[in-house]
Amino acid sequence: MHFGLQFFPDAGPDEKSAQAYWNESLDLIELCDPLGYTHIRTVEHYFDRYGGYSTNPIVFLSAASQRTKKAKLVTGAILPIFNHPFKVAGEIAMLDSISNGRMEAGFARAFLPHEFRRFGRSLDESRARFDEGVEQVRMLLEQERATSHGTFHSFEDVTSLPRPVQKPRPPFWVASTSSPDSFIKAGKNGYWLMSIPRDAGQMRELISLYRKTWRESGHPGDGWVMMTFQMYVSRDMAEAIDTYREPVNRHLRYLADASSEWGTGTASKDYPNHPKMLEALRKSNFDDQRKDDLVWVGTPSDVIERIERFNEAIGGFDVASLQVNTWTLPKDKAERSIRLFAEEVAPHFVARRKEPPPQRARVTA
Amino acid sequence: MHFGLQFFPDAGPDEKSAQAYWNESLDLIELCDPLGYTHIRTVEHYFDRYGGYSTNPIVFLSAASQRTKKAKLVTGAILPIFNHPFKVAGEIAMLDSISNGRMEAGFARAFLPHEFRRFGRSLDESRARFDEGVEQVRMLLEQERATSHGTFHSFEDVTSLPRPVQKPRPPFWVASTSSPDSFIKAGKNGYWLMSIPRDAGQMRELISLYRKTWRESGHPGDGWVMMTFQMYVSRDMAEAIDTYREPVNRHLRYLADASSEWGTGTASKDYPNHPKMLEALRKSNFDDQRKDDLVWVGTPSDVIERIERFNEAIGGFDVASLQVNTWTLPKDKAERSIRLFAEEVAPHFVARRKEPPPQRARVTA
Repeated sequence: MHFGLQFFPDAGPDEKSAQAYWNESLDLIELCDPLGYTHIRTVEHYFDRYGGYSTNPIVFLSAASQRTKKAKLVTGAILPIFNHPFKVAGEIAMLDSISNGRMEAGFARAFLPHEFRRFGRSLDESRARFDEGVEQVRMLLEQERATSHGTFHSFEDVTSLPRPVQKPRPPFWVASTSSPDSFIKAGKNGYWLMSIPRDAGQMRELISLYRKTWRESGHPGDGWVMMTFQMYVSRDMAEAIDTYREPVNRHLRYLADASSEWGTGTASKDYPNHPKMLEALRKSNFDDQRKDDLVWVGTPSDVIERIERFNEAIGGFDVASLQVNTWTLPKDKAERSIRLFAEEVAPHFVARRKEPPPQRARVTA
Repeated sequence: MHFGLQFFPDAGPDEKSAQAYWNESLDLIELCDPLGYTHIRTVEHYFDRYGGYSTNPIVFLSAASQRTKKAKLVTGAILPIFNHPFKVAGEIAMLDSISNGRMEAGFARAFLPHEFRRFGRSLDESRARFDEGVEQVRMLLEQERATSHGTFHSFEDVTSLPRPVQKPRPPFWVASTSSPDSFIKAGKNGYWLMSIPRDAGQMRELISLYRKTWRESGHPGDGWVMMTFQMYVSRDMAEAIDTYREPVNRHLRYLADASSEWGTGTASKDYPNHPKMLEALRKSNFDDQRKDDLVWVGTPSDVIERIERFNEAIGGFDVASLQVNTWTLPKDKAERSIRLFAEEVAPHFVARRKEPPPQRARVTA
């Protein structure tokens, strides 16, 4: 299993400035290469303390590229619905160039109604815009001259610059949480999959569906799956729990606040499960999530057991993206936890580490 | 006078990769702080070797922020017509946060017909989209809750995140080349001005118009003007000229190629002078431009004289943005020229260095 660091800013201006948050995160990022963390990742969100400091993940990852030489730089995730495919393709290739081929592009549909409303986008166009957006960005990156006549964007004989370093293009990740269709589509397209851990039984089915479709579509290997976890380890169990209970609960509250419109009658054919799923999240808390091994907080040996159990329960995954800081956690405590995890937890999983299957250029019919 | 480094990538994939270009540029950027260069700057262009490696200047500047601690990071320039105001405001504030308040936002109208065509934008909407775009980005950055009902974008009660470090916001630059209206508007708005040097007599009039409007509008100081120059110095005059003649001529050819549609009947009410101006540029070359002191290539003492003459001829300007590399120039030669300029040319102008006038928040009626 690979471990990387996720930076999800969940603070507002009255809590911690973006200046302080991003600069502390960049300092922590210097630990990546020496400690063997294999990726850095951040989100795209807007207008709200739930992620809103990161309106363009590539801007932060570009700074992060200068503090590391090996770690992959992963968007988790770009939202095609709020971006023009020319911009996304160009920015992906700029980061791939600046970082000497370390860029990995994760894409998501977005799910916060307030973002759709402010950008003037319909929730009911979410799937269509996502599918077209990812496909057009793929074409612009893979093909030296790309032509696409889409519902939302069209172009003819366009050379997207710069050309990416990685060929046929930087690997794509697709974010999927609950819809079997999304898992199937990711497998069919040969894209890697990023998800947020929830009910292990359901995750197991969905991931199995993804891997099965991947294999049946003739892609080499068995797919590639990333999961995100809140992580804090300490030699003192009580200290670990006391330190990270409130940050995890707060993150869940902020998510509930940011997605509150799902609870006031918002509905969309493209999000059949979201009102229910977010209602469940709203009732969830640190202690429940930790009971289910969805947060990795404890002593090193306790966290090793949680990882083993969760990995077993969902049928195995490949990459863990660890949320390691939060605005109330002093940087030195975050650093201590990151070091301790690298020294005492990660080594137990290195022997089972696989390499990701390659992504091939699409053969156009 | 302040001197900074401009990185305008003018190479295609068959000439020099973006990976090589950007990484060499980042190495040169490390010279900035120790040698006293006060800014780093790059462009926004698309689809063509004329600038097309830089589809989002903020992505490169974010990497550059990690190689410097003092230099300002200047977009030269963002093109509002191809970007959503939410994205531009968010990215400006992200860079301002990551760089600890060193971001300066330059904006331009864009002028290459092929970019408008591919983005599906009308040349005749250029002024209207620019004015609305810059104004909306200003509001999103200055105001904690911004409302604007525009022709192209509208929003109500939006909090753009992150909030910028600099207050009321990072300084704005406006790129103007030939239209008196643009110079007047920049002065009226209290924005700094960036331009490309051409006919000194005409520049003198336009800059004087800008400064006069600035003062008459009640802004403190006398405006602030940046000019861009190709720069290469060497102790050997012949070597300097032999090294930089072809790169300058090639840059002019690439500009002519990229803007060729102006010569094949393209016309727009928003660009009354462009067909003529670009026809003149097409006929221009290194030797003509050097004769007019528009390129700074020679020995240190020769270049000092050129700077003095040009500064005198246009009535004084404040910042020179120096284009210091080109894809055929080996990095060590670029570095030698950058060092020599800092050691023997820049010191002659430091005593006359002023500080820029502040930009104030707009008082809304």
